[in-house]
Amino acid sequence: MIPDRTTIEEAAARIAPYIHRTPVLTCNALNRMFGGELFFKCENFQKAGAFKSRGATNAIFLLSDEEIRRGVTTHSSGNHAAALALAASRRSAEAHIVMPENSNRVKIRAVESYGGRITVCKPTLEAREETLKKVVRQTGAIEIHPYNDYRIIAGQATAAKELIEQTDGLDQIIAPVGGGGLLSGTALAARYFGENIRVFAAEPAGADDAYRSFKSKTFVPSVNPQTIADGLRTSLGSLTCPIVLQYVDDIVTVSERSIVEAMRLIWERMKIIVETSSAVPLAAILENKIPVKGTRTGIILSGGNADLDNLPFKAEL
Amino acid sequence: MIPDRTTIEEAAARIAPYIHRTPVLTCNALNRMFGGELFFKCENFQKAGAFKSRGATNAIFLLSDEEIRRGVTTHSSGNHAAALALAASRRSAEAHIVMPENSNRVKIRAVESYGGRITVCKPTLEAREETLKKVVRQTGAIEIHPYNDYRIIAGQATAAKELIEQTDGLDQIIAPVGGGGLLSGTALAARYFGENIRVFAAEPAGADDAYRSFKSKTFVPSVNPQTIADGLRTSLGSLTCPIVLQYVDDIVTVSERSIVEAMRLIWERMKIIVETSSAVPLAAILENKIPVKGTRTGIILSGGNADLDNLPFKAEL
Repeated sequence: MIPDRTTIEEAAARIAPYIHRTPVLTCNALNRMFGGELFFKCENFQKAGAFKSRGATNAIFLLSDEEIRRGVTTHSSGNHAAALALAASRRSAEAHIVMPENSNRVKIRAVESYGGRITVCKPTLEAREETLKKVVRQTGAIEIHPYNDYRIIAGQATAAKELIEQTDGLDQIIAPVGGGGLLSGTALAARYFGENIRVFAAEPAGADDAYRSFKSKTFVPSVNPQTIADGLRTSLGSLTCPIVLQYVDDIVTVSERSIVEAMRLIWERMKIIVETSSAVPLAAILENKIPVKGTRTGIILSGGNADLDNLPFKAEL
Repeated sequence: MIPDRTTIEEAAARIAPYIHRTPVLTCNALNRMFGGELFFKCENFQKAGAFKSRGATNAIFLLSDEEIRRGVTTHSSGNHAAALALAASRRSAEAHIVMPENSNRVKIRAVESYGGRITVCKPTLEAREETLKKVVRQTGAIEIHPYNDYRIIAGQATAAKELIEQTDGLDQIIAPVGGGGLLSGTALAARYFGENIRVFAAEPAGADDAYRSFKSKTFVPSVNPQTIADGLRTSLGSLTCPIVLQYVDDIVTVSERSIVEAMRLIWERMKIIVETSSAVPLAAILENKIPVKGTRTGIILSGGNADLDNLPFKAEL
């Protein structure tokens, strides 16, 4: 069942001891540049470096003692992997993480540092799913999907819930969209805890499945996505897609060039580290796809796990 | 006269409307790594991206109306240039900034964005001083030295004053040392506003003039400094050197490799952007030159104006 107001409030209380209530930052230079007030919810400062800790922690703590003894598993090359490993460690449970062999070193190290057990596989969706099935057969671990799970959605919703509590009235919130867990949660939280807050999603043009799903009002899968925003390459899920179609006001797409420019603006002006996916909402503002002049706009900075060895600032786009 | 307690309190009140009371951040991962509590004073989030705004603002607002009409000037390739330009703009005054022709693009753009008038010169100390003299002759502008000025020292002292106010008791504070403005101010503030707080300085081994001055108890100039910590290449001044010799507990030196490693730790673990000079105190902790186990240690992150086009993470050292 789509998380209701109480479910999200309960999730917030459940995860509170294990996650950061991240700060909301503002930047005079950016406000002047865009002629509106921007409120950045800094999930880059979240445990394990991304909002993913919210959903993973909520899911882990909803498992019974019997379930958690079996351990948990997921396939992920990204932030959900580390978040799940960290959350599982809070209940002294094993986390079996299936990671494609081309995963970046930083993400692998993060999973290891939280005690996750990594199984490497070929970098295809088929190999990932096959390997995951094998892990489940061998260990009995319970799969925690990165976004297509109402417990995860309720957890991710707590970021926007906090953002609304930490600001004195917002006109709109912009979130990036990949699998739609964060976006679904944001749309629900805005509805339950805000007053007339519009919710927009920003998506890389090279991975515009959510945009096309939204415009066609029917699920369109992500096929061969091409974007540096590696957190946003996935398709919407069967649970997130309906929430996005029903509760999100609009989805816009942005160019790779704008993503890099927006990321650079955040790094240079705000002096904080965000990963590429986090820059996508500001890219939509840069392209004026989502007007912010005269508004109070919340922006969810989804994560901060940038790969310092492969920064995009000099890349030819 | 060396700034006394009241002078620093007055400086704090004078500059308060124009600067940020920057946050003090902690990081569980780093605390676990080093077995002590580290409190990072985030001057990377300061106006114009560095603590330099404190001293520059204090100096500018101490000028009479008659003086400020003449404009101000300095030679600087770094953060003092932007800080002075911004502070001067608060009094609608002209700031003439002499910058060596090899100054980095980001710093030049910053000075321009605050309305500073740039005069380019050859990248030698002689050329800088000659050009500055010429600017003074032509414009009548008043020189504001980046550190060898008690008004500047009193301004920089407000960073440690705030750090002490924002934390509940510190055993020690570590600051980087270049010209000694920040370090002098930190030592004075610890003495006036703290209780038994030791003050340490960390300096790149390749620019160890302050270390040698401290150990020999006599001024040693910086000759041909070699370090990526570009803010720390200058010599102590005639006003800062005696304060450093008298009030600082010890000065240690660190390797270039440790500076890069410390900078990477701050970026990766804290998700904030600091420039190379800011990483020098943590480098001293990494090298165990300043033990922190079981202590409460304040660290001044001096600035955040990193050159994103020339990051050191892949550099061979």
